[in-house]
Amino acid sequence: MDYTAIHLQKEALTPLYQQIANQIKLAVEQGDLQPGEKLPPIRKLANTLGVSPITVTQAYETLAEQGVAGGQVGRGTFILPPQKVSHALSYPLTPQLSSSYIAEEIMPYASTEEPREGWTANLRPRGRTPRAALLQQLFQQVTRGKPAHTLINFSSGNPDSSLFSLAHWQQIMAQAGVSLEQDSQRPAALTAFEYGSALGDYALRSFLTTYLPRFGLQITIDNLLLTSGTQQGLDLVARTFLAPGDSIFVEQFSYIAALDIFEQYGVHVQPVPQDEHGIQVEALERLLNAPQNRPRLLYTIPTGQSPTGTCMTVERRRRLAELATTYNLLLIEDDPFNELYYEQDTPPPAIWSFASDGRVIYLKSFSKTTFPAVRLGCIVAAPEVLAYLVEKKELVDRGTSLLVARAILAYISSPAYERNVEQIRDVYRQRRDVMLTALERELAPLGCHWSHPTGGFNLLLTLPAGLNEMEVVEEAVVHGALVAPGRFFTPAPTSERDHTLRLTFANKPPEQLEEAARRLALALHTLLQRGGHSTYPPRSFTTDV
Amino acid sequence: MDYTAIHLQKEALTPLYQQIANQIKLAVEQGDLQPGEKLPPIRKLANTLGVSPITVTQAYETLAEQGVAGGQVGRGTFILPPQKVSHALSYPLTPQLSSSYIAEEIMPYASTEEPREGWTANLRPRGRTPRAALLQQLFQQVTRGKPAHTLINFSSGNPDSSLFSLAHWQQIMAQAGVSLEQDSQRPAALTAFEYGSALGDYALRSFLTTYLPRFGLQITIDNLLLTSGTQQGLDLVARTFLAPGDSIFVEQFSYIAALDIFEQYGVHVQPVPQDEHGIQVEALERLLNAPQNRPRLLYTIPTGQSPTGTCMTVERRRRLAELATTYNLLLIEDDPFNELYYEQDTPPPAIWSFASDGRVIYLKSFSKTTFPAVRLGCIVAAPEVLAYLVEKKELVDRGTSLLVARAILAYISSPAYERNVEQIRDVYRQRRDVMLTALERELAPLGCHWSHPTGGFNLLLTLPAGLNEMEVVEEAVVHGALVAPGRFFTPAPTSERDHTLRLTFANKPPEQLEEAARRLALALHTLLQRGGHSTYPPRSFTTDV
Repeated sequence: MDYTAIHLQKEALTPLYQQIANQIKLAVEQGDLQPGEKLPPIRKLANTLGVSPITVTQAYETLAEQGVAGGQVGRGTFILPPQKVSHALSYPLTPQLSSSYIAEEIMPYASTEEPREGWTANLRPRGRTPRAALLQQLFQQVTRGKPAHTLINFSSGNPDSSLFSLAHWQQIMAQAGVSLEQDSQRPAALTAFEYGSALGDYALRSFLTTYLPRFGLQITIDNLLLTSGTQQGLDLVARTFLAPGDSIFVEQFSYIAALDIFEQYGVHVQPVPQDEHGIQVEALERLLNAPQNRPRLLYTIPTGQSPTGTCMTVERRRRLAELATTYNLLLIEDDPFNELYYEQDTPPPAIWSFASDGRVIYLKSFSKTTFPAVRLGCIVAAPEVLAYLVEKKELVDRGTSLLVARAILAYISSPAYERNVEQIRDVYRQRRDVMLTALERELAPLGCHWSHPTGGFNLLLTLPAGLNEMEVVEEAVVHGALVAPGRFFTPAPTSERDHTLRLTFANKPPEQLEEAARRLALALHTLLQRGGHSTYPPRSFTTDV
Repeated sequence: MDYTAIHLQKEALTPLYQQIANQIKLAVEQGDLQPGEKLPPIRKLANTLGVSPITVTQAYETLAEQGVAGGQVGRGTFILPPQKVSHALSYPLTPQLSSSYIAEEIMPYASTEEPREGWTANLRPRGRTPRAALLQQLFQQVTRGKPAHTLINFSSGNPDSSLFSLAHWQQIMAQAGVSLEQDSQRPAALTAFEYGSALGDYALRSFLTTYLPRFGLQITIDNLLLTSGTQQGLDLVARTFLAPGDSIFVEQFSYIAALDIFEQYGVHVQPVPQDEHGIQVEALERLLNAPQNRPRLLYTIPTGQSPTGTCMTVERRRRLAELATTYNLLLIEDDPFNELYYEQDTPPPAIWSFASDGRVIYLKSFSKTTFPAVRLGCIVAAPEVLAYLVEKKELVDRGTSLLVARAILAYISSPAYERNVEQIRDVYRQRRDVMLTALERELAPLGCHWSHPTGGFNLLLTLPAGLNEMEVVEEAVVHGALVAPGRFFTPAPTSERDHTLRLTFANKPPEQLEEAARRLALALHTLLQRGGHSTYPPRSFTTDV
């Protein structure tokens, strides 16, 4: 085919890469390009068309996703033989894929990396820069020249370090030392100090079988694998069970570090609608019924969902477990915030408790109730699922440190732990209440609405129609508040999307939360007066298909 | 093409998969198969030809390696358009690729896994079972029915747990607790407890800049990244810098866990000849000059090499650093055994010290001088190389635990540490000496020769010609000794290879080492009488191109 004949409309709504992909696909359908023919090198076609190499890369990726062309490493991209099912990706339920979404909606707002020089510049392949790093770049960019003390940081997603139970840790470490000393006296216990099972310390795993039932997990020690935090648990799951091109489901707004992990493995991350009560299971079932959607797994944070703070109802948890069985889905239940639930009673039992056939992999972090630098978590799974994960754990680090395991055991088995959890839960609850009152007073009149967190550290605020979240982030800095734009927390929008912000209420004292809400309101007011328009009264928080 | 016409000679020297691949390649060359045509599904062709699906898989992999066909995930394998350079892989310097090597020379000796049932059976993709796991399966198989107390285990590669410095650890943990307590009192130091830099604890990194110069590393804190052991360091390097199809170099016999990591990433691992003085740098340069060899990195253990125990000379270290620059190679220097060097003086300076442009990534483990379940190591690299690794570390677990870092700091900065290292070095040295004397007495007369370890835990014994190492492993069990066959420690043989065994001398008292040597000699004697023949006098240890 004659590539100079590709006609691009720079002002069109259809993105350039899509226009390129469409015209190449047409050439294939008309026989101008034959199976086995090679497409031009990316830089060459970019030069021919006067577009960036990224645009051509996206066009080729789109063709690959549609089964029209395929890349051979180091050789180029070739036209593939015709496929039976070719309209899969134009089905309306399928959202925009996250790779192009990130390229278009996130990358342009992060400051471009400085080009590396010398031989290290050629140290490929790196994979995409993680969203979390891009978000940090964005923050650096928008706060440049702004003294830190003039800003209230509403955006970190982190706990308050002044609430860590550090007063106990001298004693805890000493106690862990005593436990090591005791084991070292018994020859039979010496294996604990060797290269051993990648499952992790027997003593801690044994204790966890008595700790985890409070969340609805009736388990034995054979269900448990210790990890270096939930981050590693997620990475192990992705590394073990996902391959490039696989499809997975997550809540419409999800945990940024989880998105980063999944996207590193080249999987398609698709959003599932959610509301105040968690994942909308009917919408999920429609998505599962769409023939082109064959997700391998669904990742969810049912309690203290990140970033909305919402809690999934017991009925939906039960239904989710059923759907997993019906649709042959692996369900990843991430539960860092169960101990930080702010309502009267406890959260509903874990989804794990409703799954009879071992389709749920449950992840527990202890970062939220100790401190993040502890780096200890665990994976709970059926033994036959765990066997796959242990093999990978053995490969990546041969097991989590005995020293950390014994320290955590000393702490979470002590009365000090339960007291401390209760204390921090009270503090975080109070901050949540202050935050909601301040938002009602300051931001409801401007047409904002928000999720109502029952757990966790954050909530998701939806801006009035007409306001762009990136403008708001910039204007808020002018008024002394740093907020995080919602686009970093969603794999891809499903439709004409709302603009949102993630607000962290956990790590600021009440007076700062109130002041931050005032400053944000001032920023919105300024932008609205400049030409935006509000849609009062506020709706309740829902994401739509 | 007519696949029923594929003619297989089951008795031929050419493996079946190779015969299949050859005949398909011929059909392509003769035009009977066209680019874009789809090859039959693996199971179908296996049925047609009466061979196992693994054989067909290997045939298709061979065609993929030769650029004849390529797989599309979930769609099948297709004939590719003709390639310009097609003879690369028949060049004599290129060894057999490790994937088929493992399939042919390792897998058949490991007991086959039990087929999984139910829905978890479909939890693909797992990747290949690691060599270390296959080796354990082999051990289980050959020792079945043999009471453990009747066997001397010569095969583990592990340290002796009775030498761990456990008497100190109660005090060390308490001291680490004090250091945490002190930090918790200073608001400026509180960040250590938060989600912070994935580089790891500042205090330990700071101390390491004063500890590592003894190995020839003049560094600043900006060169250091803490990891959960060297295992994780290797995994981070592979994950960051390697892509499937990349080529890397390792010593002809290497560390089994390192091979497992590299092979997981689908890279081609190629052996480099070595002798008593380390990698043969002239042979390496010939390999680097061969146009089809474009390795991205070379992995080496210069001191106490695993499994040979040999030490690379200072001249070769210097030359290796030069070659890395000339041939644009990343050099991974794994140095777990520097503290356990058994000669009068210290080992030559690290290769790191000869590299001016940051091409060396140095890995330090503390497992050998503390105990393995500690799981702490570090990566030393140029800041611009480290930047890539830190980004991955952030993704896989967000940083190594502060608790472990402070405990290791408390220990290795104490006088007890230096004393303990000296003590265990003396014990291991004595065992090495006993082992060499016993081998000289028992196994030299049978035509064995072996590497002469100056550090580490192991040596590599070469069997007399005519003896198969797998037979020896089985026969040795009959006589009460468990030894590890050399094939598990080499990526692929370069030519008609020697049969070898890895023997671990570190974790047994002298009298058991002598008894194990006697038992092994008895096994060899039995086999030789049955029909083997020896080649006395012994040569010195060398692997040839």
